[in-house]
Amino acid sequence: MPESLEAVGRAAKAASRVLAGLGAAEKNSLLLNLADLLEAERTALLAANAADMEEAKRSGLSPALRDRLHLSPERLFSMTGDLRRVAALEDPTGRVLDGRILDSGLRLVRRRTPLGVIAAIYEARPNVTVDIASLCLKTGNAVILRGGRETRRSNEALAGIIRGALRERKLPEESVQTLPGDDRKLLHALLRLDRYIDMLIPRGGPELQEFCRENSRIPVIAGGIGVCHIFVDKSARQDLALPVLANAKVQRPGVCNSVETALIHQDIAPDFVPALAACLGDKGVSLHHDAKAGSLLPGDCPCPFFPLEEGELDREWLSLDLNLVVVRDLDEAVEHINRHGSGHSDAILTESMENAERFIRLVDSAAVYVNASTRFTDGAQFGLGAEAAVSTQKLHARGPLALEALTTYKWTGYGAYSVRE
Amino acid sequence: MPESLEAVGRAAKAASRVLAGLGAAEKNSLLLNLADLLEAERTALLAANAADMEEAKRSGLSPALRDRLHLSPERLFSMTGDLRRVAALEDPTGRVLDGRILDSGLRLVRRRTPLGVIAAIYEARPNVTVDIASLCLKTGNAVILRGGRETRRSNEALAGIIRGALRERKLPEESVQTLPGDDRKLLHALLRLDRYIDMLIPRGGPELQEFCRENSRIPVIAGGIGVCHIFVDKSARQDLALPVLANAKVQRPGVCNSVETALIHQDIAPDFVPALAACLGDKGVSLHHDAKAGSLLPGDCPCPFFPLEEGELDREWLSLDLNLVVVRDLDEAVEHINRHGSGHSDAILTESMENAERFIRLVDSAAVYVNASTRFTDGAQFGLGAEAAVSTQKLHARGPLALEALTTYKWTGYGAYSVRE
Repeated sequence: MPESLEAVGRAAKAASRVLAGLGAAEKNSLLLNLADLLEAERTALLAANAADMEEAKRSGLSPALRDRLHLSPERLFSMTGDLRRVAALEDPTGRVLDGRILDSGLRLVRRRTPLGVIAAIYEARPNVTVDIASLCLKTGNAVILRGGRETRRSNEALAGIIRGALRERKLPEESVQTLPGDDRKLLHALLRLDRYIDMLIPRGGPELQEFCRENSRIPVIAGGIGVCHIFVDKSARQDLALPVLANAKVQRPGVCNSVETALIHQDIAPDFVPALAACLGDKGVSLHHDAKAGSLLPGDCPCPFFPLEEGELDREWLSLDLNLVVVRDLDEAVEHINRHGSGHSDAILTESMENAERFIRLVDSAAVYVNASTRFTDGAQFGLGAEAAVSTQKLHARGPLALEALTTYKWTGYGAYSVRE
Repeated sequence: MPESLEAVGRAAKAASRVLAGLGAAEKNSLLLNLADLLEAERTALLAANAADMEEAKRSGLSPALRDRLHLSPERLFSMTGDLRRVAALEDPTGRVLDGRILDSGLRLVRRRTPLGVIAAIYEARPNVTVDIASLCLKTGNAVILRGGRETRRSNEALAGIIRGALRERKLPEESVQTLPGDDRKLLHALLRLDRYIDMLIPRGGPELQEFCRENSRIPVIAGGIGVCHIFVDKSARQDLALPVLANAKVQRPGVCNSVETALIHQDIAPDFVPALAACLGDKGVSLHHDAKAGSLLPGDCPCPFFPLEEGELDREWLSLDLNLVVVRDLDEAVEHINRHGSGHSDAILTESMENAERFIRLVDSAAVYVNASTRFTDGAQFGLGAEAAVSTQKLHARGPLALEALTTYKWTGYGAYSVRE
């Protein structure tokens, strides 16, 4: 354990005690002030990001990752807009969840409290720095941020402004600390810091998730990997199903709630598969088909198409690629989703009430939709403000990780020198 | 991974899908029937337990552990009483937590659902088998139980009856499966079964907790270790404080919510330390004191007393031993608790409203009491029915782990072929 990291943990824990004592008004005013500061410092922020972008280009970072890294003036204002929205949300801490008077006269109250210290590991999106910091501060938590190497300058600039906002309010600067993103040893040591850190949020690819799951002594919120499905049932309205599939695949293919696999009921596949290819043809989508779907694609298919390869059904594409699979019925679709999905977001398109309810009951995912795009799974869309991540595990929090997920609760009992019988 | 264990996991997952579809009435009637069956089979159950007890005596198991292992007719009826109480509790699954209509018209609902498959590892208490199985069945979860080696026959007899109850209702027997308690390799393999198991509850000593934390790929609910404190503030009513400390130490010393350390405010220590020794003297308590407390113990102290040794402040005694430490003030008491405590249950005895609130705010434990014994931390005491464990971690569930803690939730969205803008 590097001495300095130990000190980071200790300082975070100390800061968390101060934050836990703040009222909602103090925390909100801190966030609003931070939003003002970020806008006031936009020239410096955009310059830092431009330098990151320059280096990313030189080092050959993919266009998709460069797009995520890029901080435009519009994105900066969208970020501060989110910050102000978080400030406006209700503070969940302090809220009484339940309580009762026990037979012994003990008055029991269960109340939401901050978690303490949260660590987040993420990759190239500077807005994540502000999203996570603001959600943590709003809930009275200290946070340790480990952004990607490629976004170092942007994150340092953002963190500097956050520290300034804390300083102005005479709050501990160690409430939000950043770690360098290029030290794997440091990451490993961080995962052992369970003495100080209460929750770990890894936002990144399967390799990072696996590394954290294997090595972390801190409870981990796994998530962020979306292998999402849309099942087109035989009763679905095909003309309306096409735009839903297009939305789920094309609107923002690089995010976790975009669709990976379309499961088509065999009875409508002869019509629907060619119609889908036609619909996606001018949108640049490539199809990866099973044997049945392949036999239904027209010779002059407007999409590039390929037979499905090993592992592609379990893969998060993050690109304009779509798996196309013909299934016998709803049960086969459900089985496919529970086997290959990541428990993120899955949808059924159907006119059958019975099938809709059955699908909702049997699909074991964080978000399950009837006649809607998978793209809705998102903290802001759900009205939760920003999100710290999307959890695909079932413990603690499932789906968009927002304010409530950054809290715990404490039981308090008030007695009169009460003893247990 | 042993092939058979893989099969256990797969069967549990399949059973969990059946259980998740049951209504509250079906689950309650299963539990009530199980209570009847356990009582009807009491002769066989007590005989199996007597055989375990015989072997435990031969193998030199400690009297404390033998007491935990022992199933008397009274304990059996207390167990079936708990079962009927669990049946009478409200089923948390199916309950809508919240929901809203999004701007796009999507109707969003967040609803409690079963977790799926739960694994529990525990030691010599046969009633835990029934407690955990009943809480899991009530919430629609399948469960894999790994009891201690020393309680093998009792657990097999109990599991046999549970399987019989499931069979009578035509429910999968694999809803409740048991693993042998003497195979460490099998335990290690179990911890890797995250594909099938959604939550792991280790109930046992620090070694088991540490083993699970290090090796489990399944999310773990850490807990069950109680290093509990009572701080006697200078304003406390000393005559009333004595019975609270006696209750917390003596009433049932072998359980996790009994007190380990009394922290005494220095201003009252000259009176209170000798009074406490006198009060505990005829109850067989041994005192482990710091220098200041030692100097205040009378020469004819009615308790055996020893200077505190390295590590004893961090140790769960589970016996009639009590650490005695004199502190400068409330802040030193809080610091002591947050450093040495296990985040289980801690109390302040005081007449100061301000100190009570400060203690509650700053002590980072699952249950914090004002003027009450730590012994109250318990699912049945809290009105939650039985408990599967007591969590000392902050994620997912804190304190007594009862029905709600065995559930997760699912977001469902109903649209009209809705797409995201």
